[in-house]
Amino acid sequence: MRLIYGLICLFILSLLPLAKGQNGIVVFQSDFGLKDGAVSAMKGVALGVSSTLKLEDLTHEIPAYNIWEAAYRLHQTVPYYPKGTVFVSVCDPGVGTERRSVVMLTKSGHYIVTPDNGTLTLLAEHLGIAEIRQIDEAINRLKNSGASYTFHGRDVYAYTAARLAAKVITFQQVGPKLPAEVVKLDYQKAEYANGTVKGNIPVLDVQYGNVWSNIPRAMIDQLGVKPGASVRVQIFHGETSLYDKTVRMVNTFGEAPVGNDVAYINSLLNFSIAVNQGNFSETYKVFSGPDWRIVVSR
Amino acid sequence: MRLIYGLICLFILSLLPLAKGQNGIVVFQSDFGLKDGAVSAMKGVALGVSSTLKLEDLTHEIPAYNIWEAAYRLHQTVPYYPKGTVFVSVCDPGVGTERRSVVMLTKSGHYIVTPDNGTLTLLAEHLGIAEIRQIDEAINRLKNSGASYTFHGRDVYAYTAARLAAKVITFQQVGPKLPAEVVKLDYQKAEYANGTVKGNIPVLDVQYGNVWSNIPRAMIDQLGVKPGASVRVQIFHGETSLYDKTVRMVNTFGEAPVGNDVAYINSLLNFSIAVNQGNFSETYKVFSGPDWRIVVSR
Amino acid sequence: MRLIYGLICLFILSLLPLAKGQNGIVVFQSDFGLKDGAVSAMKGVALGVSSTLKLEDLTHEIPAYNIWEAAYRLHQTVPYYPKGTVFVSVCDPGVGTERRSVVMLTKSGHYIVTPDNGTLTLLAEHLGIAEIRQIDEAINRLKNSGASYTFHGRDVYAYTAARLAAKVITFQQVGPKLPAEVVKLDYQKAEYANGTVKGNIPVLDVQYGNVWSNIPRAMIDQLGVKPGASVRVQIFHGETSLYDKTVRMVNTFGEAPVGNDVAYINSLLNFSIAVNQGNFSETYKVFSGPDWRIVVSR
Repeated sequence: MRLIYGLICLFILSLLPLAKGQNGIVVFQSDFGLKDGAVSAMKGVALGVSSTLKLEDLTHEIPAYNIWEAAYRLHQTVPYYPKGTVFVSVCDPGVGTERRSVVMLTKSGHYIVTPDNGTLTLLAEHLGIAEIRQIDEAINRLKNSGASYTFHGRDVYAYTAARLAAKVITFQQVGPKLPAEVVKLDYQKAEYANGTVKGNIPVLDVQYGNVWSNIPRAMIDQLGVKPGASVRVQIFHGETSLYDKTVRMVNTFGEAPVGNDVAYINSLLNFSIAVNQGNFSETYKVFSGPDWRIVVSR
Repeated sequence: MRLIYGLICLFILSLLPLAKGQNGIVVFQSDFGLKDGAVSAMKGVALGVSSTLKLEDLTHEIPAYNIWEAAYRLHQTVPYYPKGTVFVSVCDPGVGTERRSVVMLTKSGHYIVTPDNGTLTLLAEHLGIAEIRQIDEAINRLKNSGASYTFHGRDVYAYTAARLAAKVITFQQVGPKLPAEVVKLDYQKAEYANGTVKGNIPVLDVQYGNVWSNIPRAMIDQLGVKPGASVRVQIFHGETSLYDKTVRMVNTFGEAPVGNDVAYINSLLNFSIAVNQGNFSETYKVFSGPDWRIVVSR
Repeated sequence: MRLIYGLICLFILSLLPLAKGQNGIVVFQSDFGLKDGAVSAMKGVALGVSSTLKLEDLTHEIPAYNIWEAAYRLHQTVPYYPKGTVFVSVCDPGVGTERRSVVMLTKSGHYIVTPDNGTLTLLAEHLGIAEIRQIDEAINRLKNSGASYTFHGRDVYAYTAARLAAKVITFQQVGPKLPAEVVKLDYQKAEYANGTVKGNIPVLDVQYGNVWSNIPRAMIDQLGVKPGASVRVQIFHGETSLYDKTVRMVNTFGEAPVGNDVAYINSLLNFSIAVNQGNFSETYKVFSGPDWRIVVSR
């Protein structure tokens, strides 16, 4: 009798392999686009590891080779997924060179599988590094994939992420522990001095053409600017001034007439600027990247 | 002994939380596009509510702020999902203004979580309103999201949809019941009179450039037009005539030579017109929206 | 007592309906794009058959009516999914004409639901045909869909794929067995003769603009070309020569300076050519299709 109960319990428990730690969710990001089969092949490999995994996407429209944007999209999205989610990010212009393939565990309990080429810059700063391990490709590589030299995304990253998420391997079995450091991209940090805030434009809100800065709301508060008040916003590309206007700070776009420029705090709680129901980026030819600067004052 | 059986049964039942009513499926629609992390963050929030939810997409390529198209895509798709599916539609140019955030239960048993800004126009007409409730944001809002003023899609709509779909809340717990009415967009209805049918062009079949009308097959039958016969089709943009030809009514494109204009009944059972293996919209500069009219006669 | 055990076991087994054969995964491919509700409606129908199915995508960006590319994307992706996966491919310019609707079981254990219009060309060659059955639409057609003549993708293909994947029907219940042959598209095969390899360019690696040939690595080995060595590559569109250069064969892009042309073996183990961190296709106006030829020599 006890044996039978034991077997039943074991059986039921086997249906629940994801009870703690990794949660069985894998989220994919890449610069592959969705026009060919590359992303789908990664998912096929993951389901071959375990068909119980839940596969989601961050985006596959990272501009080709744009590591900075890959870093930013992770920063924007990872915190909203439950603890234990495994992310795969493949934006890898240096594939096959000496960059390391790693898995970073953040202090928030998220795993990121990626080449260590700058992709982890913002997550390391904002969520913190709990531990980093280098992928041991002797173990964590799709069987019979040795002859293929150029698709690490599928054969190493998706495969390792799936095995980790499905608890086929522990985090320790990813490979050797590395020092808690990542390759970092250089960018201009937000800073407050003498009634002026400086920052950069990491990305656009591409669908609407809104401009998002890296300036946190706390610095806008430090300026003493409240919703309803006006702020002076200057935007520079290198040394060229492209925008210099006084705009209204709003809580919601609905407060301003259609077509007006408005400043607001975006969903990441950073200072942003938009044309209400228009496209700020196209209107003023303002884009994003490390060479764009934004200056806010009263 | 009985206790043990009872526990085993309870345990097994706990694996089946979605046995009736809501079915654990959430379908997302928006005008966010897929280039940034917005859609993925919504899904992260949903999986944070329950990692057993099944998340699908309708489309995220609704043209920015085009409520009419959001309404049409729901109308086109909702009926094909099983009863109990929860849809989230976020096309919200008036975010933060007085429009209400609601959940509509249709008479067909589908739930739609959306701002009540016209998005529900066609579903309310075609599937019928069983009950509408206003989202009580004091309860149904992602924890710690109060400081973020502009991403209702993630913090209220995705969160509420996930809680409803996962049965964390009942439909009653969404918030107070509203009168069974929705904000409606104005558009020209299909009408038959004196051997002529008039209607509008709600959307294009964008991938192929086919033109879909809102004229139901029954009205074409009323005209006495059968497959194989010819019909006169006129298309107007405002008062400007852009097309006036007699075309053949076909059951399948294969019946007509490549390159020929053909009229047919589309998958929504409405009158449509296409160039066989060509792009009608580009060829004749015919587009969609409330200011487009189509007239069909023998 | 035995009865109770039996019931418990039956109950547990009912939770595991996908233990062998079909694996409950359905992968969708089409030329529908993602701007309207067509793909989502297919998924709704599938979840209506069984809400336990796992639905993934190959791509929906097959250029309209391009059967060749549909064939190639399947060839590129199917082998990476676990045995028992059911694929639906809907690229169907001849919808409604005499082409047959079939399900092919490959020797590798994958199922493909598609019109037999050339889509199966490459899978039949590379994975082999185990058995082909014609879909009996009297049985395998969404209820009440008879009046709609133009959306076989949803009403027949998605519906049949879902029923097969969920084991509502067996492979035999798809319909009558056909001879183990498929409609084949004509294309130039790779061939080696007198120190020269000829092939064609089936597709581009669209996101990066790299050119992928159908020439297998074994033929490059036959030429005696090793990584690090140089090869002469000529590309012709019909009889027009568009490219004739000697380029370096690399294992990884990182071995060559940014901006250099490089030859390499791609993830499908075929000969390919690229500009390192550039776009070969745009630079040299080289595209893909049956009328493109590539010639490689030492």
